[in-house]
Amino acid sequence: MATFTHHHHGALLKTPLSGRARIPGSKARPGPFRVRMSLQETGPSLAVVGVTGAVGQEFLSVLQDRDFPFRSIKMLASKRSAGQNLNFLGQNYVVEELTRDSFDDVDIALFSAGGSISKEFGPLAVERGTIVVDNSSAFRMQEGVPLVVPEVNPEAMEGIKVGRGKGALIANPNCSTIICLMAATPLHRHSKVLRMVVSTYQAASGAGAAAMRELEQQTHEVLEGKPPTCKIFQRQYAFNLFSHNSAVLPNGYNEEEMKLVKETRKIWNDTNVKVTATCVRVPVMRAHAESINLQFENPLDEDTARDILKKAPGLVIIDDRTSNIRRDVSQEGNYGLDIFVCGDQIRKGAALNAVQIAEMLL
Amino acid sequence: MATFTHHHHGALLKTPLSGRARIPGSKARPGPFRVRMSLQETGPSLAVVGVTGAVGQEFLSVLQDRDFPFRSIKMLASKRSAGQNLNFLGQNYVVEELTRDSFDDVDIALFSAGGSISKEFGPLAVERGTIVVDNSSAFRMQEGVPLVVPEVNPEAMEGIKVGRGKGALIANPNCSTIICLMAATPLHRHSKVLRMVVSTYQAASGAGAAAMRELEQQTHEVLEGKPPTCKIFQRQYAFNLFSHNSAVLPNGYNEEEMKLVKETRKIWNDTNVKVTATCVRVPVMRAHAESINLQFENPLDEDTARDILKKAPGLVIIDDRTSNIRRDVSQEGNYGLDIFVCGDQIRKGAALNAVQIAEMLL
Repeated sequence: MATFTHHHHGALLKTPLSGRARIPGSKARPGPFRVRMSLQETGPSLAVVGVTGAVGQEFLSVLQDRDFPFRSIKMLASKRSAGQNLNFLGQNYVVEELTRDSFDDVDIALFSAGGSISKEFGPLAVERGTIVVDNSSAFRMQEGVPLVVPEVNPEAMEGIKVGRGKGALIANPNCSTIICLMAATPLHRHSKVLRMVVSTYQAASGAGAAAMRELEQQTHEVLEGKPPTCKIFQRQYAFNLFSHNSAVLPNGYNEEEMKLVKETRKIWNDTNVKVTATCVRVPVMRAHAESINLQFENPLDEDTARDILKKAPGLVIIDDRTSNIRRDVSQEGNYGLDIFVCGDQIRKGAALNAVQIAEMLL
Repeated sequence: MATFTHHHHGALLKTPLSGRARIPGSKARPGPFRVRMSLQETGPSLAVVGVTGAVGQEFLSVLQDRDFPFRSIKMLASKRSAGQNLNFLGQNYVVEELTRDSFDDVDIALFSAGGSISKEFGPLAVERGTIVVDNSSAFRMQEGVPLVVPEVNPEAMEGIKVGRGKGALIANPNCSTIICLMAATPLHRHSKVLRMVVSTYQAASGAGAAAMRELEQQTHEVLEGKPPTCKIFQRQYAFNLFSHNSAVLPNGYNEEEMKLVKETRKIWNDTNVKVTATCVRVPVMRAHAESINLQFENPLDEDTARDILKKAPGLVIIDDRTSNIRRDVSQEGNYGLDIFVCGDQIRKGAALNAVQIAEMLL
């Protein structure tokens, strides 16, 4: 498919969009040195589950960009994709079918193959002594399973390390939660967030590579005056927007919205923080944006907030004053802010966050 | 340009999208009967200022759809557009250049040619005894100028009528304000809104027909892997979003955002209502959507809210539970709601609202 640039002009805060260019310390494309790295005898043995998917492919790109050390890597996917050839760091790999025996001698498995696959194979991997970093929602709210954004709550995975012969489950938060908390947490630490009202502008990528292709195809069709082909979302997406396609719960919020509410409480370890969200798909390819209204317990003026965010890890302030850190005009004094954030849903919203978690396991 | 359908799936509330199909009492395309109407001797004399623009063209479409009675109509535009031929209700009209003498014997003038044109020619028209319905922001906040959404505050224009030989200025609110208040006002009347947090999803049409063409052109270019042509917005709009392109004020909010804050207070005649807004352009053609979080003084449960909105004029509830009237999970009891609204920015957001105002002048 065509490659899309993602200039989120006016976005206040960015987690890395292109990854390579923005991640501090990240390296350029691999040279001979990198190839040697990939053949090293040291480092953990890895498995990537769902390697042919959008996030699976991004796992590989991030492992490469960050020189993640490993002595072996298994490319795992469904029977349908098994047998495909993959080139990674100059070597050819054959995609293997995921089975209950896939995890023998796997130290770290990065899962992104949907909740049902995670539910079935995650515990099996843990039994085999594998540490599973799961990008699905299967275990996020399960007690005892750390839900981790490395910049926010690394302490949640304390004691989980490769080489102790013990398996474990670690959950990657939902993309919208990660992108929201990357910006909200440094402010929360300073002035304590009491309430957060979030409205999202979510990309096709959150529904996978097929959804991105459908948006592209529909856009062609609408421009040509043809009816759009609606398979993934069952509705027009090109030049349109709609409430997030996840299941609607009895309280009327969809699952995506309640993830932001519940995951924030778990990650901040604060059952009292008040959060509400409206999650909307907009016709962009892969970067999510979020409008966040914050109410604080303690005063926080705009300039202090800007300084805090400038120093915060993983953030870039696009301080062009076309979108701003703004003192909330609907609240007295300095007890509120309106901010607008954006981040690459596949990268920091999924693959990068998971690989950062894996780095902390070494 | 290609014609675009606008299925805002999941949108909770709609002001008329297609107009014709949804406006109660509206008629089908004109037959001979309609042509006779256009030749009648009764009714006011009209002028449309900025008739060649996106809103100007919509003025004509709405006048036609609603069988607006008139004895004559002047098609006015800039020197650049003067001399063009227009067919309206089966008759040919030549677009005339707007001059200080354009308003002799004009009862009602519908202005949509930008703030500077309104500032220069609006008062001249009023001196000539013309009632000006102005779609620009030039006079909205001026004391003594009614700012009117007919479903919300018709009383604001009390005493202004055609045939009393007195000119007057009436301001059409900003599109985002109209669409927001169409839904928020019926709830406000029941339980009094104390605070409103709005995030918008705004269409290209708000920046005019040229912006719609630029979005279409950029989309073609991006799909072909070419760099997008950036004239109107000076940035990529296709498959992208950005903070609203209006000027940023010293408080960090842009003008579009502060219009929602200030116009709401004037229209509701409530200087205490707390409003904040984040206004964002999304790559859709002509319908705005808004995520609105409401805090009430008095309790309002979800079912009551739905009943109120079902009975409210100009609204259609898309009650498919994929987007909802939801009890705000971030507030105790029934003191908050999250709603998602959408409306045609050119139609109810501009032309239809102005023509509804004109209807009240007869």
